[in-house]
Amino acid sequence: MINRFLHHLNISEPTVILDEQRVKRNIERMVNRARSAGVQLRHHAKTHQSAEIASWFKKKGFSTITVSSLSMAGYFADHGWTDITVAFPVNILEIKRINRLAGKIRLDLLVDSTEAVAFLDTHAEYPLGIWIKVDAGYRRAGIPWDDAGKIVCIAQAIEKSSLLNFQGLLTHAGNTYKAVSIQEIRRIHFDYRQRLNNLKKEILKTGISGCRISIGDTPSCSVGEDFNEVDDIRPGNFVFYDQMQYQLGVCGDYDTGAALACPVVGKYPHRRQIVIYGGGVHLSKESMLDEQGHRIYGYLAFEKDGTWGQADKGAPVIGLSQEHGIVEIDGGIFDEISIGDVVVVLPVHICLTVSPYSSYTTLGGRKILKMTGNCR
Amino acid sequence: MINRFLHHLNISEPTVILDEQRVKRNIERMVNRARSAGVQLRHHAKTHQSAEIASWFKKKGFSTITVSSLSMAGYFADHGWTDITVAFPVNILEIKRINRLAGKIRLDLLVDSTEAVAFLDTHAEYPLGIWIKVDAGYRRAGIPWDDAGKIVCIAQAIEKSSLLNFQGLLTHAGNTYKAVSIQEIRRIHFDYRQRLNNLKKEILKTGISGCRISIGDTPSCSVGEDFNEVDDIRPGNFVFYDQMQYQLGVCGDYDTGAALACPVVGKYPHRRQIVIYGGGVHLSKESMLDEQGHRIYGYLAFEKDGTWGQADKGAPVIGLSQEHGIVEIDGGIFDEISIGDVVVVLPVHICLTVSPYSSYTTLGGRKILKMTGNCR
Repeated sequence: MINRFLHHLNISEPTVILDEQRVKRNIERMVNRARSAGVQLRHHAKTHQSAEIASWFKKKGFSTITVSSLSMAGYFADHGWTDITVAFPVNILEIKRINRLAGKIRLDLLVDSTEAVAFLDTHAEYPLGIWIKVDAGYRRAGIPWDDAGKIVCIAQAIEKSSLLNFQGLLTHAGNTYKAVSIQEIRRIHFDYRQRLNNLKKEILKTGISGCRISIGDTPSCSVGEDFNEVDDIRPGNFVFYDQMQYQLGVCGDYDTGAALACPVVGKYPHRRQIVIYGGGVHLSKESMLDEQGHRIYGYLAFEKDGTWGQADKGAPVIGLSQEHGIVEIDGGIFDEISIGDVVVVLPVHICLTVSPYSSYTTLGGRKILKMTGNCR
Repeated sequence: MINRFLHHLNISEPTVILDEQRVKRNIERMVNRARSAGVQLRHHAKTHQSAEIASWFKKKGFSTITVSSLSMAGYFADHGWTDITVAFPVNILEIKRINRLAGKIRLDLLVDSTEAVAFLDTHAEYPLGIWIKVDAGYRRAGIPWDDAGKIVCIAQAIEKSSLLNFQGLLTHAGNTYKAVSIQEIRRIHFDYRQRLNNLKKEILKTGISGCRISIGDTPSCSVGEDFNEVDDIRPGNFVFYDQMQYQLGVCGDYDTGAALACPVVGKYPHRRQIVIYGGGVHLSKESMLDEQGHRIYGYLAFEKDGTWGQADKGAPVIGLSQEHGIVEIDGGIFDEISIGDVVVVLPVHICLTVSPYSSYTTLGGRKILKMTGNCR
């Protein structure tokens, strides 16, 4: 019988399990990195989406938080957070929600266009902190870092507005997720810092006083060696880490703080596969290529020291449909698995996996509530 | 200003919109196919997960339904459905739920192992309809079709049990989703029918009377020409269809019944891309390769005749992170799109997209409620 450490949880459906000790250790480590680098940690709560987990940061003295949507900002405002950055290009269609929130808390927003600044200038009813989102190479959102003219012009437009308060330059080095080595992550991290710092100098030249620099990704924040020029960091994934981060070399074998426990519903010895109750809706269809170039959706991990051990590379999740997951199992453990067992899946991208759930179950059997995704 | 047909809906967040007329036409078409083929339609409600949409089938005289989980069975039982098939290998860890439901409604379950039959035989408290799940080539769940010995043996074990009532053989030709032509879909459909029919003959030889054949996938049910030997069909996706089905040639340009409306939050003329509020959590990370071999997550569609038109192949969703979607737009429509507009995304796989939402919004502005995914 496998995974005895789960038995007392009476799991019968896909369930997000949480190793509280590991999560707290991950938080502790990032807090220490931020403190020793002298930067402000505004952790990104989009990963855990939980008031209780956010409170673990508050206990360490942090009173600011980052989120990825206004509904998430609303959830955390309802749970006592009064200083929230929405790290997503401002959605002007939600202006009513913006005004409602900004009337209650300190709300920081991102802009990357003159149109958005003009709109906020006209429609804001309360003071808003405004960051300019810079695309420093990732090519998702933001004004390109080499368009200093536009960035300066937007900073000036913000300065001119009465309710908009210019905060600084914010970027997300999402390209570190595609890096092939720690060296490459550090090189990207270096380039981003330089690019933002050069832009900051251009802005300061115009007489604007105060321009913070905010960076965000978990890889840079986990392994970056130098945070000169940086004021704020906004990593999120590090509270749990996942197989994408592990493959990057950003976390260790025993750092994954959350996983998906799934019932075994089928066993097929002729192809050494099992089918689990745990499909695309439960795990998300985020995938990655393993070392042999095969597309996988996670790995099983088996019991070790009263929790789950490292990813078993011989037990990849090779297929997902709506409710089914197919796991290929190479090795003797296959014979020990029976229908009715519960296996632990370490997801590729934990943020997407946990998003639709309403709670975590700790290994001690306690429920930790969270907001439920972002879909109405 | 684009997509005027959406303005009165006041969309400010990713919202699943529904073209009721198209959905009803899709249902009508499948009902007619089933009737003219003389097969029982037990449509798969995992796609829409909505009591109201299910009621549109009831109005056409259908009183049976298929679902993919016991929680979904519970939802539909609560909405008056009394004959439900859970088309997923039975999850014996949910035996309490099975007994609760089977005490109220007629519940059909799937087995593909002697272990599951033995477990149900020991633990069932009410009569259960039992189907043998056959793997007729897809290699996901089920007993391989060429292992007639095992299939007959399981049928006999079901027959011997007092509360388990043998229903027949059930399969899902999921490999039609990977077909490259209508001819290939029809060939798979033909093979599956033959394989199940041969197995049925083996079962009947043992003196077991009554063995229905149930097939399930939307491609086979949409374009299959011959349903001889088949008793039940269980398609689900056809109520909405999606870009995967369209690429297969299974539906037409104007058959997609549901789509995701997303706010435009960023516009980047230097790379002819926009960023939408609509990421992996809103759309799912299901992807497919376009005709040039590029991975895409959906296409935009623009207004036509008061609804959305066909997929614009020049406007693919090329990237998704948690909340951001990146759309590349080739063509003059790019200049017409502004921050604050709402665009319509036609998803690759609609079942995964709609699953986490709690409602649909019709083009008339009415909310149609649904159950919210399958994650607690």
